[in-house]
Amino acid sequence: MEKLPLEKAFLFIEPGPVVLITTFDGKKNNIMTVSWTMVKDFDASFIFLTGAWNYSYKALTKTKECVVAVPTADLAKKAVCIGSCSGADTDKFEKFKLAPIKAAQVCAPLIQECYVNIECKVTDCVKKYNLFVLQGVEAWIDDKRKEKRLFHAVGDGTFRADGKKLNYRKIMEAKLPSGV
Amino acid sequence: MEKLPLEKAFLFIEPGPVVLITTFDGKKNNIMTVSWTMVKDFDASFIFLTGAWNYSYKALTKTKECVVAVPTADLAKKAVCIGSCSGADTDKFEKFKLAPIKAAQVCAPLIQECYVNIECKVTDCVKKYNLFVLQGVEAWIDDKRKEKRLFHAVGDGTFRADGKKLNYRKIMEAKLPSGV
Repeated sequence: MEKLPLEKAFLFIEPGPVVLITTFDGKKNNIMTVSWTMVKDFDASFIFLTGAWNYSYKALTKTKECVVAVPTADLAKKAVCIGSCSGADTDKFEKFKLAPIKAAQVCAPLIQECYVNIECKVTDCVKKYNLFVLQGVEAWIDDKRKEKRLFHAVGDGTFRADGKKLNYRKIMEAKLPSGV
Repeated sequence: MEKLPLEKAFLFIEPGPVVLITTFDGKKNNIMTVSWTMVKDFDASFIFLTGAWNYSYKALTKTKECVVAVPTADLAKKAVCIGSCSGADTDKFEKFKLAPIKAAQVCAPLIQECYVNIECKVTDCVKKYNLFVLQGVEAWIDDKRKEKRLFHAVGDGTFRADGKKLNYRKIMEAKLPSGV
């Protein structure tokens, strides 16, 4: 993995892919699968929704740190299975044969097999809506991998891998943030 | 267009597509292109981010109503162009040859050319983050159209149309909300 400039991190969340969010509760790494997430700003800040019904919630609120890892289409089935069991009784890294890697600035681990990993601090929580506000502080990309298609949850148990690329850079040029 | 059961509306937002949000300020219909949006719950409630820098903001805060219209890949270029000009000096329905249709419960218009239209009330605004909370009150689907691929903004002026469908319904069955 190489460093990904932080101003490019939103490029991997804005398309609305399924993401894996890792936490460390002081004893154990854990992973949750999330698709209710959005970009908050171009500065690697994001919002996602979770709550006490989720086992990762405790670690997240205690440490205020996590890693948002972006899997590609080849990991779709694994991501679904990760979201279908609980860290309460499962070591998900072990069960799903994923390699946790020490992050640079947060206690939660990177996932080696993912395309992009964004180390995040929880800067706020909008309790009324269970929204967690994340600030990316360091990001990593595995640019040498072949499979780069993100995938998207439909919500009915089906998913869509990225398909055809459409390029409208010329039309949008004036509106694009610098560095992308 | 036929009625879409409200409990199915989230299926068109969860994948993270580019959406078109219409408003009516009392005089003029307008459209904005939005990709910073997420599902809030399975009950057709959503969150999206906009602010005073956007011409639609005034109409949205005044009327507290909008329509979230979901375009398909054949409308991608049009959606980009809609997002690259302002309602301040442009009648976007006219300029982009889109047909506004009277909604059933809100003053903002449906967009005939879109795959899905969700009539929404603005139920709250988290001012600190410019988040608008929407509650869908009626939804419509044009299920006879051929092109059904949604498309996703990468954020750098390129977009991705939906590609291969992946089906993991069996794994997720226990977690799916009823009616989908």
